Amino acid sequence: MKKNIIVGQSGGPTAVINGSLYGVASEGVKKTSDIDTVYGMINGIEGFLHGNYMDLGALDKTNELELIRTTPGAYLGSCRYKLPEDLHDPVYPELFRRFEELNIGYFFYIGGNDSMDTVSKLSRYAGFMNSDIRFIGVPKTIDNDLVETDHTPGYGSAAKYVATTVREIAIDASVYDNKKSVTIVEIMGRHAGWLTAASMLARKFKGDNPVLIYLPEVAFDPDAFIEKVRSSLEKTPNLVVCISEGINDGKGTFICEYASEVGTDNFGHKMLTGSGKYLENLVKEKLGVKVRSVELNVCQRCSCAHLSRVDLDEAVNAGIYAVQAALAGESGKMITFIRNKSVPYELSYGTADVNIICNKEKPVPAQWIIGEGSDISEEFVDYVRPLTQGHVELPTKNGIPLFAYRKEN
Amino acid sequence: MKKNIIVGQSGGPTAVINGSLYGVASEGVKKTSDIDTVYGMINGIEGFLHGNYMDLGALDKTNELELIRTTPGAYLGSCRYKLPEDLHDPVYPELFRRFEELNIGYFFYIGGNDSMDTVSKLSRYAGFMNSDIRFIGVPKTIDNDLVETDHTPGYGSAAKYVATTVREIAIDASVYDNKKSVTIVEIMGRHAGWLTAASMLARKFKGDNPVLIYLPEVAFDPDAFIEKVRSSLEKTPNLVVCISEGINDGKGTFICEYASEVGTDNFGHKMLTGSGKYLENLVKEKLGVKVRSVELNVCQRCSCAHLSRVDLDEAVNAGIYAVQAALAGESGKMITFIRNKSVPYELSYGTADVNIICNKEKPVPAQWIIGEGSDISEEFVDYVRPLTQGHVELPTKNGIPLFAYRKEN
Repeated sequence: MKKNIIVGQSGGPTAVINGSLYGVASEGVKKTSDIDTVYGMINGIEGFLHGNYMDLGALDKTNELELIRTTPGAYLGSCRYKLPEDLHDPVYPELFRRFEELNIGYFFYIGGNDSMDTVSKLSRYAGFMNSDIRFIGVPKTIDNDLVETDHTPGYGSAAKYVATTVREIAIDASVYDNKKSVTIVEIMGRHAGWLTAASMLARKFKGDNPVLIYLPEVAFDPDAFIEKVRSSLEKTPNLVVCISEGINDGKGTFICEYASEVGTDNFGHKMLTGSGKYLENLVKEKLGVKVRSVELNVCQRCSCAHLSRVDLDEAVNAGIYAVQAALAGESGKMITFIRNKSVPYELSYGTADVNIICNKEKPVPAQWIIGEGSDISEEFVDYVRPLTQGHVELPTKNGIPLFAYRKEN
Repeated sequence: MKKNIIVGQSGGPTAVINGSLYGVASEGVKKTSDIDTVYGMINGIEGFLHGNYMDLGALDKTNELELIRTTPGAYLGSCRYKLPEDLHDPVYPELFRRFEELNIGYFFYIGGNDSMDTVSKLSRYAGFMNSDIRFIGVPKTIDNDLVETDHTPGYGSAAKYVATTVREIAIDASVYDNKKSVTIVEIMGRHAGWLTAASMLARKFKGDNPVLIYLPEVAFDPDAFIEKVRSSLEKTPNLVVCISEGINDGKGTFICEYASEVGTDNFGHKMLTGSGKYLENLVKEKLGVKVRSVELNVCQRCSCAHLSRVDLDEAVNAGIYAVQAALAGESGKMITFIRNKSVPYELSYGTADVNIICNKEKPVPAQWIIGEGSDISEEFVDYVRPLTQGHVELPTKNGIPLFAYRKEN
C-alpha cells in the first residue's frame, strides 16, 4: 500500500535548508510506486499539531519547487518546540493520530540538535507503539556542531558569507590612514566556533586581517586579549578581531554576561547579545585607540549572497538520500556526511543513530586552535575550504533575487 | 608638453569607488599624447600632503588595474581632511609646490560633498594663482545626496544591497509562527533617506515587508510610529520596519539622542545606541511584542555581494569622462549624470560647477514620501530600479572574491 511523506523544518533558518526540503520533495514525488503525496508541515511539529500542513507535490507542477531550492530561510516556516521527555504525554498519541489521518509512512525533519531530539522521541515512541512510520532526520545548522557527520548543510554557505564579509569589513577598516584602530566582528556560535573559525579564510596573505580569532572552545582571558590586541596593533595598525558570540571564561560565564543581564529562550538556552560591545569598551578603556564592534546580522544564517554550490548540492542530496534511506527501511536515523578525501574533495552519504546525535555538540578540535586561543591552524583551512566552493546563479526579477514564499503568508 | 595626472579618493568607501579610480587610470594611460604618468594619492589629499602617492600606470601592465575595478572600498585609501576656508593658508602653496614637483596637469578627486569642497577650494586657489592645473570632481556616495546630478555612483549597488538584505531579513523574521514580532532595520543616511527608501524594493508583493519606511526628510513622531506599528501588526504579524539612522524630530534632534536613558557599562561609559535600538525598546515598552533591531553593518557601503552592473559601469564612465573633460579644458567641475529616460533607461554625462555642489545636500523629494511619512511612492521605484540592474561576475580565488590591495599595506 502506498504511503505519504510529511516533511518539516525546525530551528533557525539557513541559506540551504530549503535545498534539503527540495531534495525530500523532489525525490518523494518521483517515487510514485511507494509515495502518494508529499506533505509539508507549516511551522514544524508545532504547526502540525495545530493542523497546519500543505501539499508540496502540487508545487512540483509549477516552477515553485525549483524556486524553493535557491530560496534562503525556511519555506515551510519553523518552530522551536521541544517534545516532552515523557513518552506517555498525550501529545504523542495526538501526533500519531494525525499521522494516521494523513496516511503518513515517512517523516522527515530538517534541523539541528533540537530537531534531532524530536526525531529521536518520535522514533522511540513509534517503536514503543509498534508503528511502522519511519522517522529520519536531515541535518541543518550553520553552527556545524552535529556529531557523527563530517559537517552539516548550511555551514559551507555561512562560512563563505562570513569569510567574504569579514574580508569586506577589513577593507572598510583599512581605508583611513594608519592611525591605530580596532574592529571587533561578532559572529554567531554559542558553544561551537566553526563559523567564527571560517573568518580565517578572509585573509588575503599570511598575517592579514583578521589577525586575531577567538572561539568559545577556549577559555577567554580579557587581560591576555588586551595584550594580544596591543602587540598586534604594532604590526597591523587597522586591526580586525573576530570573536564568537559565545566566548566565555571557561567556567560557564559568557563574556557578554560581564556586561549585561541575559534572558533565556524556551529551550533554556541563554540569549546572547553583546560580547563584541563589551570588548569594544574594554579596548577603549585599556588601550585608548579608535575601536568599533560589528555584529554580523541574521544574514550570516539566511543570506543567499554567497551561496556555496557544494553546500547547496549537498543539502539537496541529504534530502534525496533521506527519502531513499526511509524507503529502504531505516528509521531513527540522521543522514550523515562522510568525507572520503579533501583534495580532490569526495563525499559519501550515510546514516547514524539519531539518539547519539541529539543534544550533543561537536566542538572545533583543540589541536586546530593555536596562538594561545587567538588563532586557527592551517589544517582547518583544508577542512573548510572544499565546503565553500562554487557559485550559484540565482533567479532574479528586477535586479533583486527572486525568492519563493507561501502565498497565504 | 605632456603633463601627469593625480587622482585621489576621499570620504567613506563604496562598492564602486574603485570603478571610478579604474576609469580615471585606464583612460589616463590611454591618452599617451597628453599624459605621461597617472599617480594616485594614498589616503587622499591628507596623505599626499605627507608625500604619499603611487604610480597607478604601472598597475596597468599587470592584471592589478582590472582587479581594482571590481574591488570594493577605496584602493588608494581615503581621508576626511577638510582644506582651510582661508585660501591664504600655507597648505595651498605647499600642495601646489608638490603638484609642480610631479608635473601635475590634471587633478581628480573621487568623493562626496566634502570632497567636492576640496575640488572647489583647489580650483579657486588655482584661479587665484593663475595655475593651469585642472581640477575635476568625480561623484561618489551611497547617500545619493549630491545636487546637480540625477544620482551618484555607489548608490545603485548600495540600494541593491539594502533591498536584497532587507528581503532576506524579512524572510528570516517570518520563519517562526505568526505570533506578533517587529524587526527594525536601521540603514545608513544621516540627512538623506535615499538608501533607506530603496528598502521598498524588498517587497515581493503589494503590502509586503518592509511595511513601514521612515526617512530623515520627515519629522519623526514616536507616538504616531507606535500607532502605525500597532495597526500594521494586525495585517502583518511579523512586521519589518526600515528606518534611516538619521530620523529626527524635525527640530534638530536625532531620535537616537532621545536614548539618554541607555545603560552604562561597568567602566561607566554610556553604551551608545542607535535609533533602531531606541525604537526597539520603545516598541517593547508600548506594545509588549517580540522585537529586535538590526543595524546593517558597514557592508551596505562596501560589499561586493550585490554589485549593480549599471552602477559599476557608470562609476567607470564617470572616471573616463572626467579625464576627457579635463583634457578638453574644464576645471572646477564635477561630473554629473543626466537621465534622458527611465524606460528604457538612458543616461548622458555632463559637468556642473563644483562650487554649487559642495556642502549642499539633495533630499528625497517630499512628494515621494507618503503615508504620513511612513511609506514611499511608486514613482521612487521608477527612479531607483534602473540603477540596481545587472549582475557583475567577480573574480574569485578558493571560492572567495578576489580583491586588489596595495602591497605595502
